Amino acid sequence: MSSTSLDKIALLSLNGNKPLAKRISEYMGVPLLDASVSHFADGEINIQINESIRGKDVYIIHSVSDPVNDNFMELMIAVDALRRASTKQIICVLPYFAYTRSDRKSRAREPISAKLFSNMLEMGGVDRVIALDMHADQIQGFFDIPVDHLRAMPIFAKYFMDKMDDKKDDFVFVAPDHNSMKRARSLAEVFGSQIAIVDQRSTEEQSVVPGVIGDVEGKKCVIVDDLIDTGTRMINSAEALKEAGAVDVYAAATHPIFSKTAAKDLQKSALKEIVVTDSIVVPDECKFDKLKILSVTDLLGDSIRKTELDESTSSLFKVRDSYTLI
Amino acid sequence: MSSTSLDKIALLSLNGNKPLAKRISEYMGVPLLDASVSHFADGEINIQINESIRGKDVYIIHSVSDPVNDNFMELMIAVDALRRASTKQIICVLPYFAYTRSDRKSRAREPISAKLFSNMLEMGGVDRVIALDMHADQIQGFFDIPVDHLRAMPIFAKYFMDKMDDKKDDFVFVAPDHNSMKRARSLAEVFGSQIAIVDQRSTEEQSVVPGVIGDVEGKKCVIVDDLIDTGTRMINSAEALKEAGAVDVYAAATHPIFSKTAAKDLQKSALKEIVVTDSIVVPDECKFDKLKILSVTDLLGDSIRKTELDESTSSLFKVRDSYTLI
Amino acid sequence: MSSTSLDKIALLSLNGNKPLAKRISEYMGVPLLDASVSHFADGEINIQINESIRGKDVYIIHSVSDPVNDNFMELMIAVDALRRASTKQIICVLPYFAYTRSDRKSRAREPISAKLFSNMLEMGGVDRVIALDMHADQIQGFFDIPVDHLRAMPIFAKYFMDKMDDKKDDFVFVAPDHNSMKRARSLAEVFGSQIAIVDQRSTEEQSVVPGVIGDVEGKKCVIVDDLIDTGTRMINSAEALKEAGAVDVYAAATHPIFSKTAAKDLQKSALKEIVVTDSIVVPDECKFDKLKILSVTDLLGDSIRKTELDESTSSLFKVRDSYTLI
Amino acid sequence: MSSTSLDKIALLSLNGNKPLAKRISEYMGVPLLDASVSHFADGEINIQINESIRGKDVYIIHSVSDPVNDNFMELMIAVDALRRASTKQIICVLPYFAYTRSDRKSRAREPISAKLFSNMLEMGGVDRVIALDMHADQIQGFFDIPVDHLRAMPIFAKYFMDKMDDKKDDFVFVAPDHNSMKRARSLAEVFGSQIAIVDQRSTEEQSVVPGVIGDVEGKKCVIVDDLIDTGTRMINSAEALKEAGAVDVYAAATHPIFSKTAAKDLQKSALKEIVVTDSIVVPDECKFDKLKILSVTDLLGDSIRKTELDESTSSLFKVRDSYTLI
Amino acid sequence: MSSTSLDKIALLSLNGNKPLAKRISEYMGVPLLDASVSHFADGEINIQINESIRGKDVYIIHSVSDPVNDNFMELMIAVDALRRASTKQIICVLPYFAYTRSDRKSRAREPISAKLFSNMLEMGGVDRVIALDMHADQIQGFFDIPVDHLRAMPIFAKYFMDKMDDKKDDFVFVAPDHNSMKRARSLAEVFGSQIAIVDQRSTEEQSVVPGVIGDVEGKKCVIVDDLIDTGTRMINSAEALKEAGAVDVYAAATHPIFSKTAAKDLQKSALKEIVVTDSIVVPDECKFDKLKILSVTDLLGDSIRKTELDESTSSLFKVRDSYTLI
Amino acid sequence: MSSTSLDKIALLSLNGNKPLAKRISEYMGVPLLDASVSHFADGEINIQINESIRGKDVYIIHSVSDPVNDNFMELMIAVDALRRASTKQIICVLPYFAYTRSDRKSRAREPISAKLFSNMLEMGGVDRVIALDMHADQIQGFFDIPVDHLRAMPIFAKYFMDKMDDKKDDFVFVAPDHNSMKRARSLAEVFGSQIAIVDQRSTEEQSVVPGVIGDVEGKKCVIVDDLIDTGTRMINSAEALKEAGAVDVYAAATHPIFSKTAAKDLQKSALKEIVVTDSIVVPDECKFDKLKILSVTDLLGDSIRKTELDESTSSLFKVRDSYTLI
Repeated sequence: MSSTSLDKIALLSLNGNKPLAKRISEYMGVPLLDASVSHFADGEINIQINESIRGKDVYIIHSVSDPVNDNFMELMIAVDALRRASTKQIICVLPYFAYTRSDRKSRAREPISAKLFSNMLEMGGVDRVIALDMHADQIQGFFDIPVDHLRAMPIFAKYFMDKMDDKKDDFVFVAPDHNSMKRARSLAEVFGSQIAIVDQRSTEEQSVVPGVIGDVEGKKCVIVDDLIDTGTRMINSAEALKEAGAVDVYAAATHPIFSKTAAKDLQKSALKEIVVTDSIVVPDECKFDKLKILSVTDLLGDSIRKTELDESTSSLFKVRDSYTLI
Repeated sequence: MSSTSLDKIALLSLNGNKPLAKRISEYMGVPLLDASVSHFADGEINIQINESIRGKDVYIIHSVSDPVNDNFMELMIAVDALRRASTKQIICVLPYFAYTRSDRKSRAREPISAKLFSNMLEMGGVDRVIALDMHADQIQGFFDIPVDHLRAMPIFAKYFMDKMDDKKDDFVFVAPDHNSMKRARSLAEVFGSQIAIVDQRSTEEQSVVPGVIGDVEGKKCVIVDDLIDTGTRMINSAEALKEAGAVDVYAAATHPIFSKTAAKDLQKSALKEIVVTDSIVVPDECKFDKLKILSVTDLLGDSIRKTELDESTSSLFKVRDSYTLI
Repeated sequence: MSSTSLDKIALLSLNGNKPLAKRISEYMGVPLLDASVSHFADGEINIQINESIRGKDVYIIHSVSDPVNDNFMELMIAVDALRRASTKQIICVLPYFAYTRSDRKSRAREPISAKLFSNMLEMGGVDRVIALDMHADQIQGFFDIPVDHLRAMPIFAKYFMDKMDDKKDDFVFVAPDHNSMKRARSLAEVFGSQIAIVDQRSTEEQSVVPGVIGDVEGKKCVIVDDLIDTGTRMINSAEALKEAGAVDVYAAATHPIFSKTAAKDLQKSALKEIVVTDSIVVPDECKFDKLKILSVTDLLGDSIRKTELDESTSSLFKVRDSYTLI
Repeated sequence: MSSTSLDKIALLSLNGNKPLAKRISEYMGVPLLDASVSHFADGEINIQINESIRGKDVYIIHSVSDPVNDNFMELMIAVDALRRASTKQIICVLPYFAYTRSDRKSRAREPISAKLFSNMLEMGGVDRVIALDMHADQIQGFFDIPVDHLRAMPIFAKYFMDKMDDKKDDFVFVAPDHNSMKRARSLAEVFGSQIAIVDQRSTEEQSVVPGVIGDVEGKKCVIVDDLIDTGTRMINSAEALKEAGAVDVYAAATHPIFSKTAAKDLQKSALKEIVVTDSIVVPDECKFDKLKILSVTDLLGDSIRKTELDESTSSLFKVRDSYTLI
Repeated sequence: MSSTSLDKIALLSLNGNKPLAKRISEYMGVPLLDASVSHFADGEINIQINESIRGKDVYIIHSVSDPVNDNFMELMIAVDALRRASTKQIICVLPYFAYTRSDRKSRAREPISAKLFSNMLEMGGVDRVIALDMHADQIQGFFDIPVDHLRAMPIFAKYFMDKMDDKKDDFVFVAPDHNSMKRARSLAEVFGSQIAIVDQRSTEEQSVVPGVIGDVEGKKCVIVDDLIDTGTRMINSAEALKEAGAVDVYAAATHPIFSKTAAKDLQKSALKEIVVTDSIVVPDECKFDKLKILSVTDLLGDSIRKTELDESTSSLFKVRDSYTLI
Repeated sequence: MSSTSLDKIALLSLNGNKPLAKRISEYMGVPLLDASVSHFADGEINIQINESIRGKDVYIIHSVSDPVNDNFMELMIAVDALRRASTKQIICVLPYFAYTRSDRKSRAREPISAKLFSNMLEMGGVDRVIALDMHADQIQGFFDIPVDHLRAMPIFAKYFMDKMDDKKDDFVFVAPDHNSMKRARSLAEVFGSQIAIVDQRSTEEQSVVPGVIGDVEGKKCVIVDDLIDTGTRMINSAEALKEAGAVDVYAAATHPIFSKTAAKDLQKSALKEIVVTDSIVVPDECKFDKLKILSVTDLLGDSIRKTELDESTSSLFKVRDSYTLI
């Protein structure tokens, strides 16, 4: 567990986010393992690794995004194959993984799928997880193995810093609901900006425009969230902020799930720009003019290297010097 | 664990085989739990159980068939919800479950997905499994919890008994490859019939007609297998048997996976009849004239009742008195 | 696990909250076990249970409050004794337990003590936990055993309902920081009231009066939190609300930790009333005029009875018909 | 786990197969640890290791053959001693281990001893297993730790290749029952030979000569199996093959258990030669003229070296260049 | 786990102590299960249980005495079979089990076999153990499941009480080495007698007569130990006591291992009487005139009944009213 | 796990025995980690480690002495933090840890706290324990991880050797009760001295002077024990020995717990000298004239170094060349 070189490292890309895996591989100068993941006729997953990985520290780069269950089983089966193939360590690098919103019982007889997810990975033999902007910080505690919980904040901060042009007071960072207060807070603190919150009374009735708590009159608002799923919350929040007097409204969210008609709806919404990362692959048909995708390649690549070399990762939490649009 | 009545029983149907779950429920006179399993926009599974199940023995009736990964995660998440909801026992009734063919490493760096499957169920908190015709008997040993491994043989035996009209010597039971010898043997033993084997040299090259070991000249052959996936093996075997002089060729397999164009191919093959069970739902568009579906309703229903009442299950392994076509 | 009577129930009170245990025992009509917990000269804990508990469902009623480490070890050692003494089930009824604020890593090399706490209880052999207003909902997911997470909200709701006299619009429910938004929200929803939030920029500098987000001008404010530790946050929030124009400010928090000079400070603060529960024993020297203590006796007693009888606990989450001051 | 030299290797021979352990030690140029395993007067096992093994990768070379229970306990106790003595890794090299035929429940209330065996080794702290020709491939899945499942086929193949003198068509490889089809198949494929199968109707009635499926008229037959226990099956099969017209009949089986009067019976049987390996020690009184013992020294020695050096083991599955008779 | 009758009880006798199992069965009026345990030709153990035991509490009565490894594996395999056969609980009643003297590391690189033993039983799925006079009390702590640690002291006490005829002062209870002080003490306390100790300097050199600490001049000595293995210690102690002036010397030990020539040596020793229990079967050829065997039938039978009925077992630790010689 | 240098070592001192940790750090020339352990206002423990420890072997030096529960939780929480911070190995160096006297059930419904202690450490992720003079040797078996059980005997032996001046026959080593016989024995064997035992009939009635077994007339007695708690046993034993004719009485015990008025009582007792080690910090107010404190710095420091370098630790069990008084 204590290398001083990258001799023992191996990178394995599954199907969850192949473009990002390739970018990380190039950034690090470490080739991806020769491996293929396919499906049998009946839907079962078939994994074939064509190189010996005995004694290697294998970093699996994979987003458990839609199709979430296929992607999760792909991960579990890959872990099983690696463990039986005598790798030294198995590290899951998961830019996004599903089910993190199921992190508590909100009604009787509900599962806590995020805990199930972590139990399964631990049981499978994973030695460590590198994750990015999980829905709740407590999910780190669902694991008993080491989890490096990275943040895209340092990248978003650089992006908006460049956009602000020193007019920091014009900006307000907005939490689209109570859960995201801390995210908005952490971004606001970089600039010494104010925060506001959108009070989503009932997430079920999407037609009701929610209230805004805090002053946004004449301000440029950045709504900060961990993910955009159907986009409804972002779109409604933008509308509410506009009604409350906001000049421009930006959305900044790490994970672009973009389910259903999210892409189309976001494009025609009151939002000026939707800024996300490449933690999840946005298919071409879901790309749209207002969308900006910032890459987490450097962040994850640095994290992998530091992990392999047993270096402290504190520097990864500081505002980045630059960002890359893809 | 030691009831003398069905007071504590509850039946939960997930999406894997709802028609069979309904039939079992009716057969047993025990209603299905009021529950729904749906998918969120991003593909995550959402389970809602609308009745208290505290202190109940919950039997989950579910086939982990295509889409196999969705169905498996559905099962795991349901088990998590049940365990947290304080059921007394969780029993998985799995007429079919995927990945059982991945029961050993046939190449380097392969997973053993069937073991992974059983490890996950045990870790999740399952108390017992009721399964039907698993690909290999050894899979029972992948579990450390009690597994009742039922056989459809007693149903197939009754079906062919009726068809034979006392001309038992006209029939030969055929294993379509080495793995199924034991199945063919166990059916042949009921009638004192001969067996033969189809020697599949290379499963990859589907065009080569395989050889037949054993004498089938002028005989009616019943090819016995655990499942029909693409159907290629059954179809090629039937052709080989015809070339070797067989008069009629029947296929008898428990699990109708019918992936790709299996249904169409089987209908136009040399096979006279394809007899399967309802362990997997055959969608209407995959039904065809030569197909006969025998129901395992009674077998599973009896097994559930005996389990709940702590009765011996030996009688379930004897040739049935009747069978039901659906 | 499926009783239809209370024949097998046993209540064990450790030292953490003996008065509440006695009240629950009287409320339920079930005597406390004859047992004593003492300390040896060197500080080691000595537990003596003077009745046979073979085959019993033992409910341990115990608050893991100050001295938190002694109380936690007392719990672990009692669980060990019970498991070795062949109880049927061990259920921990924990009106309060410490370390729940350590539910995530907020800095490098931090422990997640709340997870450690739950791991230790599970390892010790606890079958189920009944908890009250844990710091974060996700802590329920730290456990893999069933956890009933009760809320004092139904009691506080009744208390303020009586106080409101139908002037519900006069009241605003306030979260003293981002974490408590959900609590304030859930109480506000009972009355259809507005919410506000106190923006604690830096928890370290206690002298800075925090900002208020939302409109509280001329309103009666109820600050809602899970616990009051040193009281600083409550006191500062009250001041901020007063400055922002609030008429009266109430504090409502489930757990009265009252460390350091909390009691004295709260009494002389801008707060009009401090409403807590008896989840933690408030020693006489920490009682003060503005303090109101609502009892959770009925809530916990009902929960224990329903658990023992395998009844649904949904009704425990509805606003209570009455409350008891102690 | 990732050595580049043999600095950390240590070989420990228990009592199960000391001659083979010595041969491997010599082949590898690595001395056996100074250790002794004895029995106390009451039958308890006493293990004494006379060298420090802290930080070593200890390979235990041991056959769990008759007396199987003593040998298994010897293994477990040695593993316990090693784990407590702070070895780095414990690798069990098991040329043969008992109970693998108990790999499924064939009747009600049967154990699955092979799974129990693997569970015990894993619980004891074994890091990896190197095994040879286990009864069923699925047993690899009974373990969750890495298992290298070696085959003696590459040695047998070389032996018969030399014997064939290019007359490959004269040879037929025969499975003595359904379970061994795959073994016969894998050997036949090396030479492009035909296969046949002996149909053992009822293993209980040993007097009945079994039927032969497939054509062996005028052929030299090699019966291929994993082990020879009492020898009855081999002997009966040979007779059946002779009756079916076979010219010569050879037996090739990895593990020479030779229980009861096997040695004597095999010598006077219709078999021309009985070829086995030294996976189990054949005591002098069980040696006989027709017996040929091929050594697995090189195969196991190479496997140990490759494991220690984290090299791929694929080459071990190719036909060997030579074989050694002992 | 909470019966009020013996409806669910089942008694299973393995080969370890069939006569005692029969006596317990008769004493309790509960028949032994119809089961057989045999060995295959190669030494593997074969267990066959011929009755359904679903939902039963199965008490396995078995002494893990010589052949200790066979007997231990028999136990493990039986437990595996029972667990897979859906018993409700598995309780091991072990009048004697081997390896308890290996309860600590006395030299470097030693195993702690007694812990291994308990780990294996727990892993196998045992719910509870009933044991008798284990070598050290701490072994109870090797288990995390409930262990009832019974003592034969109440039987020996009654035996010597009858022999004393009120001349209690004539008797001294002697520990044959340091480990047995507590046993001698507990027996002495019943009578208010004195104790002495034999100082075994070096257990290896058997020829040296050990010293006696304490006054035995003119006394009747009862040497108290947990077991007699080769008998050397008892015999040497008796000699030392005689030299120190003792009049008569009795040996009282629970477990008659009697290995090597123990029986013959004890008969011709300075001991007047050797009193043991039937925890281990003494074969007829090891019986001798001076030997008295007290039965633990009632003690174990009562313990089983109380366990099944969830009754307190305190009364089992009081001096018995009578004893039975067999 | 196989270093050849101390590159990867890190020493972490918690609050349990900071002076000893500092001495060991200086002795080894390895600095203590920059870390702080404090308590929050409510008593919860707060651990802050200010250096990266990724890939390090961290040795935690900590005595779990009074306040025992705080100290134990401190240890558990530190282990949790270390595990999550990706250390390579966590080794607990515990000169003393509480609860070892609770190593068995002496009454019904008692816990076995020492086993609970070891279970918790193992569950927390500790890789190895270095302990000193645990109450019973069997506690080593409570752990399944490697435990180095060091003895202070080699230090005491040197101390008394110097004191004896070759008049070895004048000395008798005395066990103050049955449990300490082995300790007295091992020290006596160094000098070939006699032993005696104090017969503590009833530990509850402290007024009764216990009897002495063995001859101490005119001798210098050294009472040997593992710990001194309240001191009562040592003081009573000394008195008994004096009454039995002893000239001088010394007390030698590894762990100076000194609870209640132990220090004062020991000073004014019949004991001539009380010799202990610095395994537990003796606060200045508990120091007294007759007290001699021998340091275990070298012993523990050597043990840590040998462990890190994978060297044999046998030499640590030999009589030391010198001792250090502190």
